[in-house]
Amino acid sequence: METPRYIKENFKRKKEVLEVRNKMAGVAEGAVMKNNKKVLLKKYVSGFPQESDLEVVTNETILLKVPQESNAVLVKNLYLSCDPFLRVLMSDLAEPIYIEGFHLGNVIRGFGVSRVLESGHPDFKEGEYVWGITGWEEYSLITDTEKIFKIPFTDVPLSYYTGLLGMAGLTAYIGFNEMCSPKKGEYVFISAASGAVGQLVGQLGKLKGCYVVGTAGSDEKVELLKTKFGFDDAFNYKTEKSLGVAVNRCFPNGIDIYFDNVGGAMLDAALLNMRANGRISACGMISQYNLEEPEGVHFLVKMLTKRLTMKGFNVIDHFSVYPKFLEVVIPYIKNGEITYLEDKADGIENAPAALVGLFTGKNVGKQLVVLADE
Amino acid sequence: METPRYIKENFKRKKEVLEVRNKMAGVAEGAVMKNNKKVLLKKYVSGFPQESDLEVVTNETILLKVPQESNAVLVKNLYLSCDPFLRVLMSDLAEPIYIEGFHLGNVIRGFGVSRVLESGHPDFKEGEYVWGITGWEEYSLITDTEKIFKIPFTDVPLSYYTGLLGMAGLTAYIGFNEMCSPKKGEYVFISAASGAVGQLVGQLGKLKGCYVVGTAGSDEKVELLKTKFGFDDAFNYKTEKSLGVAVNRCFPNGIDIYFDNVGGAMLDAALLNMRANGRISACGMISQYNLEEPEGVHFLVKMLTKRLTMKGFNVIDHFSVYPKFLEVVIPYIKNGEITYLEDKADGIENAPAALVGLFTGKNVGKQLVVLADE
Repeated sequence: METPRYIKENFKRKKEVLEVRNKMAGVAEGAVMKNNKKVLLKKYVSGFPQESDLEVVTNETILLKVPQESNAVLVKNLYLSCDPFLRVLMSDLAEPIYIEGFHLGNVIRGFGVSRVLESGHPDFKEGEYVWGITGWEEYSLITDTEKIFKIPFTDVPLSYYTGLLGMAGLTAYIGFNEMCSPKKGEYVFISAASGAVGQLVGQLGKLKGCYVVGTAGSDEKVELLKTKFGFDDAFNYKTEKSLGVAVNRCFPNGIDIYFDNVGGAMLDAALLNMRANGRISACGMISQYNLEEPEGVHFLVKMLTKRLTMKGFNVIDHFSVYPKFLEVVIPYIKNGEITYLEDKADGIENAPAALVGLFTGKNVGKQLVVLADE
Repeated sequence: METPRYIKENFKRKKEVLEVRNKMAGVAEGAVMKNNKKVLLKKYVSGFPQESDLEVVTNETILLKVPQESNAVLVKNLYLSCDPFLRVLMSDLAEPIYIEGFHLGNVIRGFGVSRVLESGHPDFKEGEYVWGITGWEEYSLITDTEKIFKIPFTDVPLSYYTGLLGMAGLTAYIGFNEMCSPKKGEYVFISAASGAVGQLVGQLGKLKGCYVVGTAGSDEKVELLKTKFGFDDAFNYKTEKSLGVAVNRCFPNGIDIYFDNVGGAMLDAALLNMRANGRISACGMISQYNLEEPEGVHFLVKMLTKRLTMKGFNVIDHFSVYPKFLEVVIPYIKNGEITYLEDKADGIENAPAALVGLFTGKNVGKQLVVLADE
């Protein structure tokens, strides 16, 4: 079917408008003003985020040119990563987590995979792929260049750098291998185990010779943990009467390492079942981000009686480990010993739903948004 | 006034009874059966302990002789230490903390200072002083000899080994100097700061060049912290409307190290005010031991956003540090740079009240019970 004439004309009009604008803005010859769809924050979020808290605008434009004498990097965004920490940044007066809280009417930001179109920075070159902090938009002019990283290996799916080979993967590696010093035969419990981080923690645990149990929010995810990801056991926390009883059933001898992605009641259930000298990696508290009042955690006295260590961390303090992490993980990916499941939303129009769905557990595997393939 | 005749006769009768018993038990010539007052557990405690949960019995006896071929140590107890962890051991089905939970009708146990009367153990000799786990009674036959320690320096008050130079002091040293790695200029907050552990933590903090603030439960104790113990600031948590506001007022720049002796709401107030990379020493949770249902702690999300580390520990894992600890602390005690305040109850009859008073904050300084001076 041929493109209808009114669309063609609309497009032509837009192009003319852009050309006029470019001239008025004194844009250099050869520079292109491009349409640039974006996801903006429309309302500060309290409670669960709604699609209506975000807005996809389709009439914004960007000048595809790095300003002279700037060391910014102009990129085309390929994949956007839906991560729980974005929820925290959507609150009014949010404390920064790696990046500043979002402002009303501004584009939201997060981790993504992008292709460099033009670079004012000596470390990045046209045509290279990068992962790191970018805007939720089709094109971004990145000035925070210390928050993007060159993608060193392109013989694995590039989308993996939104998760397994990006922030989530490094988080799993740091939070488990480095923070918890797992040893062969130890008992490891993982919450939100089918998520981007949890998947990898479980597989790293199995590679270390640990006994690994995960929890997730649907029978389908539980099945995935036990089959695709090789967990020793798993349970659906939504259908258990008592989390404490469920955890105890899976760990009659107690837990050595609890990798916590959720906080709240699950943290309590884990605390009740920790063994002496246990370690808790406080990686995320997704169960708490949407609550007006955070839930209380009641069994911290186990910190004393069991001599536990709980460590909160932020992957950004550990980027120096990234090359070592890739060295460990990439061979396992290539030989199939580490597997990975992605849940891809298609197009920026579907980005708000994808992000919001994360908090009701809609995604199966790592949630990302595909903007373009290259 | 002369002792009334009926008492003399009563005493004579008791002595005769003891002599008969000794003969029946085949007690060796020269061994003495001695009256031995004891504190027994009368009721398992739930909620706040009451004096009536304990019972002082005055008609028990002990054979002052180490059984043949036993490596037990017979001691005369001089000082008994009132410690918060004893409350935990008074519950039914208590989890062991260093020692087993107490049983109904049995003598309660805890840290104390004692003089060796006779020893079947090569490491201890008659006339030596020891500190460690003993019974709440006048004389004890100690079989758990790995839980008593020879007192190496007797040119400081022996009672100090129930606290400053014993378990509490080592706890302060381990939990602060070793667990929290304090650095000059850091901001240190201490709860239950006038207690046995808190006093020393504060003074160790000042010696390290930290800014030290403590909280306690009376104006008198607050004054002590600021004058006698050299804290930079202190507040009475009982008269503050909001703990969070009080902590924030004392730490406008936030807290680097929180030494937690109380848990619960104070832990929340501290969490809200922690700085990035802060450390929390989970040493005690006295506010929780008497509750039927533990309070919830609501702001653990700060563990993530501030990248905090919380460490529970038990001093018993660190006894190897004891000689080093004495080496550090004793010179400061002798030159007056570390000071210490004791609250002494007199006689075993007053032991239950002294122990119970700990949980309502009656004591000013380290609470102990004096049974004998040598």
